[in-house]
Amino acid sequence: MTGVAQAPVYNRIALIGLGLIASSMFWAIQRGGLAGEVTGYARSQATRDTARRIGLTDRVCDTAAEAVAGADLVVLAVPVGAMAAVAAEIAPHLAKGATVTDVGSVKRSVIESVGPHLPEGVHFIPGHPLAGTEHSGPESGFATLFDNRWCLLVPVEGTDPQATARLRALWEGIGSNVEEMDADHHDLVLAVTSHTPHLIAYTMVGVADDLGRVTDGEVIKYSAAGFRDFTRIAASDPTMWRDVFLTNKDATLEILGRFTEELFALQRAIRTGDGDHLFDYFTRTRAIRRGIIEAGQDTAAPDFGRTPQVSKS
Amino acid sequence: MTGVAQAPVYNRIALIGLGLIASSMFWAIQRGGLAGEVTGYARSQATRDTARRIGLTDRVCDTAAEAVAGADLVVLAVPVGAMAAVAAEIAPHLAKGATVTDVGSVKRSVIESVGPHLPEGVHFIPGHPLAGTEHSGPESGFATLFDNRWCLLVPVEGTDPQATARLRALWEGIGSNVEEMDADHHDLVLAVTSHTPHLIAYTMVGVADDLGRVTDGEVIKYSAAGFRDFTRIAASDPTMWRDVFLTNKDATLEILGRFTEELFALQRAIRTGDGDHLFDYFTRTRAIRRGIIEAGQDTAAPDFGRTPQVSKS
Ligand SMILES: NC(=O)c1ccc[n+]([C@@H]2O[C@H](COP(=O)([O-])OP(=O)(O)OC[C@H]3O[C@@H](n4cnc5c(N)ncnc54)[C@H](OP(=O)(O)O)[C@@H]3O)[C@@H](O)[C@H]2O)c1
Ligand SMILES: NC(=O)c1ccc[n+]([C@@H]2O[C@H](COP(=O)([O-])OP(=O)(O)OC[C@H]3O[C@@H](n4cnc5c(N)ncnc54)[C@H](OP(=O)(O)O)[C@@H]3O)[C@@H](O)[C@H]2O)c1
Repeated sequence: MTGVAQAPVYNRIALIGLGLIASSMFWAIQRGGLAGEVTGYARSQATRDTARRIGLTDRVCDTAAEAVAGADLVVLAVPVGAMAAVAAEIAPHLAKGATVTDVGSVKRSVIESVGPHLPEGVHFIPGHPLAGTEHSGPESGFATLFDNRWCLLVPVEGTDPQATARLRALWEGIGSNVEEMDADHHDLVLAVTSHTPHLIAYTMVGVADDLGRVTDGEVIKYSAAGFRDFTRIAASDPTMWRDVFLTNKDATLEILGRFTEELFALQRAIRTGDGDHLFDYFTRTRAIRRGIIEAGQDTAAPDFGRTPQVSKS
Repeated sequence: MTGVAQAPVYNRIALIGLGLIASSMFWAIQRGGLAGEVTGYARSQATRDTARRIGLTDRVCDTAAEAVAGADLVVLAVPVGAMAAVAAEIAPHLAKGATVTDVGSVKRSVIESVGPHLPEGVHFIPGHPLAGTEHSGPESGFATLFDNRWCLLVPVEGTDPQATARLRALWEGIGSNVEEMDADHHDLVLAVTSHTPHLIAYTMVGVADDLGRVTDGEVIKYSAAGFRDFTRIAASDPTMWRDVFLTNKDATLEILGRFTEELFALQRAIRTGDGDHLFDYFTRTRAIRRGIIEAGQDTAAPDFGRTPQVSKS
């Protein structure tokens, strides 16, 4: 159904924060005709100016209060560490019966920091779309970002099932598959599938960067042999990722602990020349890749469909 | 010039081993008209049958001796750990004045294990094309694999510059940019740009796989948030990678040591809530990505140009 105009799911959606995620949501909402009106607000004049110039949201507001007034859905699309302050700012202006959701990459911490600010009679349904790129800002979004990706909803206790169903309908209209889970489980699964991989990629790129200076750009020049795939991950927004690690500390540290344990075992196998250990480990990890392709979460095209011919011209 | 028929660089090229690298070389050699004839040999009947069926090489031979007879270039395209035995097998059958090269991912060890087997009057010029995919075997190759990628040549002392120039012309005809460097430097640069990143990716996938069983496939389902890019790297051939780590032990262990040092510093920053340390680190690593795009070694397209719309249908 993606791409076909549908009945609006909400009358007025307010996007607070106008970066990669909010702008992609807007283009997908517009593509699907999912809202009567979309208002937008970002803290900086520069971002609001850009949004007005490129037509990002139907109405760009100069205050968060103005943006959320009369909205039946408010989406917090700012870094996790900024959620509490933004929630405090908008709370007095929320319409009765409105739903507040967020798109933050960590859920327990957002629930604890946003929840207390929201007034009675407002539904709070935390969410997290599992899609992104290494780019950020209002001009980085595109309508297809969420197509065929997962969006996790993390309803808190006592949430009205009707309100959840409506938010689910929005994300489905945006192109996502929706699943519900609890906050702690979310934070652990994401520590494995996203947060720890990002930290490791950042670390590897940092190590290479140190050596890169020594070897005069060779690390960049010869990056196609594996390293470059780490650099994409490690090019993501520093503020966003600082906040993720500060707020999903326990789960990330737990997975990191397991990671270093396994890494030390492989390191020992290299040192002692234990080829069987290495071979068995590398064979086991191969199967998981097949699972991901079968689950439709990646392409089997060589080189991710990068086209070297094109980059040559 | 890629894609345009050129004058043959060699009269007869023998490919020993018919996997991803050899088959991609063949299609590119054919595309460029770079050899009068290409012969091929692989140890297993199954691979030779497949090669005959798909027209991989002009003449598939049942012995290595037959394949190298009369060849003016012999390419060893087998795992690094198998190079010595293959060199011993072909040595008595090499034509006088022929060049022997290899495509192994480690160079010091190949020089030490292959060199002593080769007779006087044969040029030995080790090489390493920096391009690959996670697929292997005779059917995984394609002509454009090496386009705009680097091929490193590692001539040993006393190599005839003419022979090196000719091998360079072949790789340029195949589509690569060619650079020369010494073996130890090669092994260190590759430990940074390829070998350590692969080990880390294998480790992360192993950790996730353990947890994946617990959380019933969620790791696969939600892999698009970063993890899936590791799984591609960690789906590469186990034999090849076992051999790489066993033969590039010192450089890999050195880079791994630096990696764990940096990782522990970041881990401590997470534990103590030192957001500035995290932010500064993540900012620094961002720049290196820009360098890679500028160097033409990757695309800036969101999501590597993966097209979720297509995978949806
Ligand atoms: N990027 C991803 O891959 C991804 C994926 C899933 C979820 N998320 C989550 O989505 C949220 C937004 O990420 P994004 O990628 O869209 O980020 P982004 O492109 O960097 O945009 C962030 C937006 O938040 C605003 N902002 C930043 N700091 C703020 C503060 N202290 N107070 C108020 N507003 C602030 C920015 O305003 P200005 O433009 O005016 O500075 C900007 O409009 C984050 O919580 C992130 O965890 C990201
Ligand atoms: N894949 C990459 O990303 C990449 C990139 C650059 C360089 N390299 C290097 O290129 C070389 C070949 O890699 P590849 O990716 O082409 O591998 P591949 O697709 O797995 O093919 C390997 C070939 O070597 C043969 N072989 C395997 N073990 C052997 C043994 N013990 N004795 C004799 N022959 C044996 C196989 O024969 P059968 O088919 O009969 O089993 C097969 O034809 C390796 O040295 C690797 O380090 C690989």
